Amino acid sequence: MTAILKKGERIDQLISQGIQIIQSPDVFSFSLDAVLLSNFPRLPKKGIIVDLCAGNGAVGLFISSKTQAKIIGIELQEKLADMAARSIQLNHLEQKVSIRQMDLKDSTNVIDPDSVDLVVCNPPYFKESALTNKNPNPHLAIARHEIHTTLEEVIETSAKLLKMNGRLALVHRPERFLEILQLMEKNRIAPKIIRFVYPKANKEANTILIEGIKDGKPNGIRFLPPLFVYGGDNQYLPEIREMLYGK
Amino acid sequence: MTAILKKGERIDQLISQGIQIIQSPDVFSFSLDAVLLSNFPRLPKKGIIVDLCAGNGAVGLFISSKTQAKIIGIELQEKLADMAARSIQLNHLEQKVSIRQMDLKDSTNVIDPDSVDLVVCNPPYFKESALTNKNPNPHLAIARHEIHTTLEEVIETSAKLLKMNGRLALVHRPERFLEILQLMEKNRIAPKIIRFVYPKANKEANTILIEGIKDGKPNGIRFLPPLFVYGGDNQYLPEIREMLYGK
Repeated sequence: MTAILKKGERIDQLISQGIQIIQSPDVFSFSLDAVLLSNFPRLPKKGIIVDLCAGNGAVGLFISSKTQAKIIGIELQEKLADMAARSIQLNHLEQKVSIRQMDLKDSTNVIDPDSVDLVVCNPPYFKESALTNKNPNPHLAIARHEIHTTLEEVIETSAKLLKMNGRLALVHRPERFLEILQLMEKNRIAPKIIRFVYPKANKEANTILIEGIKDGKPNGIRFLPPLFVYGGDNQYLPEIREMLYGK
Repeated sequence: MTAILKKGERIDQLISQGIQIIQSPDVFSFSLDAVLLSNFPRLPKKGIIVDLCAGNGAVGLFISSKTQAKIIGIELQEKLADMAARSIQLNHLEQKVSIRQMDLKDSTNVIDPDSVDLVVCNPPYFKESALTNKNPNPHLAIARHEIHTTLEEVIETSAKLLKMNGRLALVHRPERFLEILQLMEKNRIAPKIIRFVYPKANKEANTILIEGIKDGKPNGIRFLPPLFVYGGDNQYLPEIREMLYGK
């Protein structure tokens, strides 16, 4: 088992899904947001799912047991794509999950436009700006800041990849919410299901989950019950615990 | 006390605010949404507050003890405006609260444009359509359906009335959310604070509270902690109970 690991890496588990995943604190570790995203969209039973900004492949691996669809991860950073490829092997999921190391803008070169049933994406959250305090570690900075891609590119690319009535599911920060709605509208994706995530019951939302349908009708938006992460005792609440550890 | 009442009317109370209010099940009774709205926006200490679609004056009366601002209600229906006027007398609030019976589109004839600190509005929720099941009672139908005004007119009128950095606070249904955002943007009102109201913790949102700032910057949107109305025992939860009955 150690041969599959490179320097500084370790194997973590998502117990609820029986998935092992190669992580590296110096390069990339999946966050709770990847777990939230992997539990959010309605998954197609078959067809093609694309995970943009796939990182170490967490989201694709986490949903793999719940669908017969082919899952294709797109990740720009070579080190992260390499970790994802080894995690796919580690879980014996080569027949179902794959990873392509490339800029997401080029993904239509390897995946047919208008062919994808679901795009999932946990993109960099923060706008690129000279004034922003970026992580000095370039791998982490690229994953968190819009250095090599932007929200606009993510949504444009998703709209190209998706078939009619295909769905885009994003996790993001509430402060980008209006921009997400505007970019979805511009790219003919109708927002349909929104869920706000609150760190605790008495706190403001710090995460948003949003699902849109390509060429969907612009009506019938639904706001799911809110999701709270921690209880008053600072322990994960049951819904989160189940996402992580199962029933 | 009975002389102030007309046929079919009764006096109800909002205990938390010590307000008596004339209601008529045949014409108009305030709903929980009026109570939610009156507890939502930050109130200016002084200046002018306008309550559009004021009905029997509930929202204006409910906020009156919490601000030194002049409160002007605008209500199209004569019977409702008349009830509001008598409730204002009943509470001895003639110096602070007034009601004008008129179409809200004409409100700039009696209130200076760009002069208002806060507009509050609990508008008709449902689009006017030949297919809609409307209430056969015309008073109730006008209060609930966009027969004599529309969301667009409400937001346009609010934008005209508000001074720069004045605020608009609306209560509405989540299915109109995208339209509210679009109309706010069109009328230079930046959405700033949103609170979703859920009937219970495990239900989808059925009400939205939204506050926008005229000529505000289009960033910094906040999503307040969710508000649940009923507990598992179908009783009002403490936050709602306090709005109704006080501490």
